Amino acid sequence: MNYPNGKKGRSPSPGKKRPQSKPDFSNRGMTLEEDINQTNKAYLELNRAVIHKKPTPVQIVNVDFPKRSAAVIKEAYFKQASTTDYNGIYKGRYIDFEAKETKNKTSFPLANVHQHQIDHMKQVCEHGGICFLIIRFSTLGETYFLEAEKLFPYWERQKDGGRKSIPYQEIVTKGYIISLKYHIRVDYLHVLDDLYF
Amino acid sequence: MNYPNGKKGRSPSPGKKRPQSKPDFSNRGMTLEEDINQTNKAYLELNRAVIHKKPTPVQIVNVDFPKRSAAVIKEAYFKQASTTDYNGIYKGRYIDFEAKETKNKTSFPLANVHQHQIDHMKQVCEHGGICFLIIRFSTLGETYFLEAEKLFPYWERQKDGGRKSIPYQEIVTKGYIISLKYHIRVDYLHVLDDLYF
Repeated sequence: MNYPNGKKGRSPSPGKKRPQSKPDFSNRGMTLEEDINQTNKAYLELNRAVIHKKPTPVQIVNVDFPKRSAAVIKEAYFKQASTTDYNGIYKGRYIDFEAKETKNKTSFPLANVHQHQIDHMKQVCEHGGICFLIIRFSTLGETYFLEAEKLFPYWERQKDGGRKSIPYQEIVTKGYIISLKYHIRVDYLHVLDDLYF
Repeated sequence: MNYPNGKKGRSPSPGKKRPQSKPDFSNRGMTLEEDINQTNKAYLELNRAVIHKKPTPVQIVNVDFPKRSAAVIKEAYFKQASTTDYNGIYKGRYIDFEAKETKNKTSFPLANVHQHQIDHMKQVCEHGGICFLIIRFSTLGETYFLEAEKLFPYWERQKDGGRKSIPYQEIVTKGYIISLKYHIRVDYLHVLDDLYF
């Protein structure tokens, strides 16, 4: 199932599409997004970092203002995000990343990423921010941290007509595995500490 | 009618209040939000900074997926933002701010700001980010930069039962005026350069 924000749902049987708007995470633990939101919440509570997910961009077309009650959005559309989904501050540094999940077991399809996200990531790197991708191979149950700088060559190669994905094995080699924990589910600051601090 | 700093009012008839919830920008040029969005766009094009407005947070309740066309959000509600509206990176530093417009001529009502925004701003300051408010007195046609640290005492005073606004004159004294320009309409990086770089 493809969602407007480019994320893939986690349908229990890949052939069987369920006509629903929410991702299906029955018996699968949480989605990467939920894990990261919980992680960020824990970081905030522990006063370690201030990192938030940006709201889903929505083009609002029609709003109803009933008397004495909250405004109701009656017509709106999903817009493509012009940046990555997460940003904030850690140890005084600007942090910016995107989280992507794939059911693919052998490679990470670059179709998960958009040109303007790449543009944004390059700008962030250029201005001295720390920029990366968190990639989850949901079928394998493995989550990796990949620096944006390591993503760019694959993106360029694809644009030049090359391979449209990053092989799993190269993500294992070039990235850093993030083991799933209980409270801080996707402890990516741990990787940042090793790499930058 | 009290004009503390000369009659710079842009309203054709200052006494005539319009009973509406949205800012009145008829014949007034652009809203502060539009000005800042244009400014950020210019900064990005000039490769000076990477600062974006976060999308309006919306709680999506019902989505329709018509065949062969884009998903339509049929029911959604505005949510209160948990952070400030703008953030990004400038000269390697994390930047975070909120923009507020008031038609009030003599003070800035603190009702424009929410507790969780204050909490967020304090967290940002604590972690080494640069955090501030851009306040426009739309009737006076004046826009000010106010460091978050200078806002906090007013907020605390209000919580202790004190004054529910910041007097205009104190914003003039403690803040920094941002003069409106053509291309970079609200050049707040200019103030940052003076203060931090």
